[in-house]
Amino acid sequence: MRELYGGITSITGIKAAGVSCGIKPSLDKDLAVIFCDEPAVAAGVFTTNKVKSAPVLVCKERLKHGKIQAIVANSGNANACTGQQGISDAKMMAQITAQELGIDQELVFVASTGRIGKPLPMDKVCEGIKQAVSKLSYDGGHDAALAIMTTDTFPKEIAIEFELLGRSAKIGGIAKGAGMIEPNMATMLCFITTDVNISHEMLQDALREAVNNSFNMISVDGDMSTNDTVLVMANGRAENERIEGKGIGYYDFLEALSYVTTQLAKMIVKDGEGATKFVELRIKGALNDTDARKAAHAIARSPLLKCALFGRSPNWGRIMSSMGSSMIELDPNKVDIWLNDLKIVENGVGTSFNEDEAIEILKKDEYVISIDLKIGTSHATLWTCDMSYDYVKINVT
Amino acid sequence: MRELYGGITSITGIKAAGVSCGIKPSLDKDLAVIFCDEPAVAAGVFTTNKVKSAPVLVCKERLKHGKIQAIVANSGNANACTGQQGISDAKMMAQITAQELGIDQELVFVASTGRIGKPLPMDKVCEGIKQAVSKLSYDGGHDAALAIMTTDTFPKEIAIEFELLGRSAKIGGIAKGAGMIEPNMATMLCFITTDVNISHEMLQDALREAVNNSFNMISVDGDMSTNDTVLVMANGRAENERIEGKGIGYYDFLEALSYVTTQLAKMIVKDGEGATKFVELRIKGALNDTDARKAAHAIARSPLLKCALFGRSPNWGRIMSSMGSSMIELDPNKVDIWLNDLKIVENGVGTSFNEDEAIEILKKDEYVISIDLKIGTSHATLWTCDMSYDYVKINVT
Repeated sequence: MRELYGGITSITGIKAAGVSCGIKPSLDKDLAVIFCDEPAVAAGVFTTNKVKSAPVLVCKERLKHGKIQAIVANSGNANACTGQQGISDAKMMAQITAQELGIDQELVFVASTGRIGKPLPMDKVCEGIKQAVSKLSYDGGHDAALAIMTTDTFPKEIAIEFELLGRSAKIGGIAKGAGMIEPNMATMLCFITTDVNISHEMLQDALREAVNNSFNMISVDGDMSTNDTVLVMANGRAENERIEGKGIGYYDFLEALSYVTTQLAKMIVKDGEGATKFVELRIKGALNDTDARKAAHAIARSPLLKCALFGRSPNWGRIMSSMGSSMIELDPNKVDIWLNDLKIVENGVGTSFNEDEAIEILKKDEYVISIDLKIGTSHATLWTCDMSYDYVKINVT
Repeated sequence: MRELYGGITSITGIKAAGVSCGIKPSLDKDLAVIFCDEPAVAAGVFTTNKVKSAPVLVCKERLKHGKIQAIVANSGNANACTGQQGISDAKMMAQITAQELGIDQELVFVASTGRIGKPLPMDKVCEGIKQAVSKLSYDGGHDAALAIMTTDTFPKEIAIEFELLGRSAKIGGIAKGAGMIEPNMATMLCFITTDVNISHEMLQDALREAVNNSFNMISVDGDMSTNDTVLVMANGRAENERIEGKGIGYYDFLEALSYVTTQLAKMIVKDGEGATKFVELRIKGALNDTDARKAAHAIARSPLLKCALFGRSPNWGRIMSSMGSSMIELDPNKVDIWLNDLKIVENGVGTSFNEDEAIEILKKDEYVISIDLKIGTSHATLWTCDMSYDYVKINVT
């Protein structure tokens, strides 16, 4: 497996574009179209929030056909909590895109991200779609990555090449994150393209599995979005023997797909709203997988701990406390905690670690906090960040 | 029922003191002793966090006897995650207090609050206990309230007088809060004294019920403490017919006790770390009580919403989103939301409310957010605050 320069348009047969149509007052790019020269196999996972945006509801419906040829996405407005008007607007976005591309509108998927509760400015959106379709190109992936950003400070893109059943195959992806990040079954927006030849069922299974250990294991602020969407389009251009079951081809593809989703997930955490630290939380020795994941999420959600990480304070009591409140099986007198390789807690009690050494680690941009519960063999890894003044500043509106 | 000036020592036969013994580097008061002239009936509720402080473990054990005559409490150090040494230290605090007072050590309850994970400086604590016992007085309640503060900016005290079975009875209370506040079955520290004549079982039942709708319905930051403790001592001096069952006397007492716990709970929220707003969240129309409470807690825990409240932004999408992630029964298309009397959401969609009018409300120090789910008849009320730069500032260490 090797990383390529580029993103979603690194895959043959995929075009993309990103334009500014005025949804964002800043006039930054805010509308993206991704197009596959022929209908592709589709997979998608979406937010489990009971309050779902209109585009999520439309995508879930369309995914039943298993086919996708285009994605139209806007930033600056989430089209969530917009009632029947929101559903009509989301369908209208797909319809106009289909019309401009000359394809069936059921093959067009829709995504939105931004402020909740405001109707889409449809006149601007329609103009934007026409403009974006006219600008579609085989190297437009980067523009599309820019056009889905909200409070993100950098675009998130990746492309890889890997061996699959004796052929060379590729996967590309773009994502946006920043705030309201504690996905469950999906993240904010992520669009993945691949030339792999695979059935809809296997693509859907692989996506679910990949997302479960990547986007579902990151946390910026514990707030779950109404718009989380991950979509994959697989056009089969790699001409590998079609993956229709869980043989070696499936697992090779899953490994590559997981690499892509994990890298994008990590980029989202690094660009978390106001984040100054990237922290890998490793839980081990948990009674079962559910407990391991729960412990990781409970720790990552603690505002107190996140403030301490911002302040470079080795206040490990906040790790113990947040873990204890998660209602997992836990013997507080067995817990060990490390900062990188420095053991700071043994059997639930602080070791006589050198505080300066701990602070040196906490000053780094990236470090690992490992927690061994010592009551089982299950483990989980989650990526999170600190909470700074800037998190508050970004979210006062 | 009427409020009296004073706190726990408004009850005849109760002495208290608060002193500085150097646990806090600031030399603010950090050690309190509360003493009842005769053994009193005890009740207590404690944190449900699986990581419990040493004093909580000691109190839970002592509560089995149903009797209490003194409480010794320190601030500045939580004596949590301190292993076997912590348990010995907590017992030692009780033992020295008992010795100085000339009573049985099983009648002494212990509480600590402050930083987790550091052993107590027992030489200072022992000196402090001796000093406090020597200063016990029938008007020392205020000093005790000061001595249990950590990042609190004001002491929390209340005393009331009410009619009970033809007699005049009193309840007094002190509490400390500030951070790590999302209690479950208790709050940080709260000590209540009363002259009511009541059995241990009825006192325990009344306390559980009162706490459930007061301390268990507040949230500052969603972090649950390892040290939450509420203790009641009832000395029977009101000489009412002893409450031994759930008759009129029990319910009159419960009403008075609930008033005391609710007022103290609200004071804790008003003094939440960095808080600039006091928000009453009213959920109604929920399918059942559990859902109503869950919805309220999910909303109050959203850092995004709390930042918006700090910024006086009517960003109601964050209410919808956090409620949707709570996994309660919910039809997003039925939800109505009000700011005080201003309806801002109807059937899940923003009304054409006047944004300036909304901002006027959000500028107030206190306001009500009401949410009607319109799918059932259950309701819940929770008190919470916003999240400001100061919350981060206070917690960087």
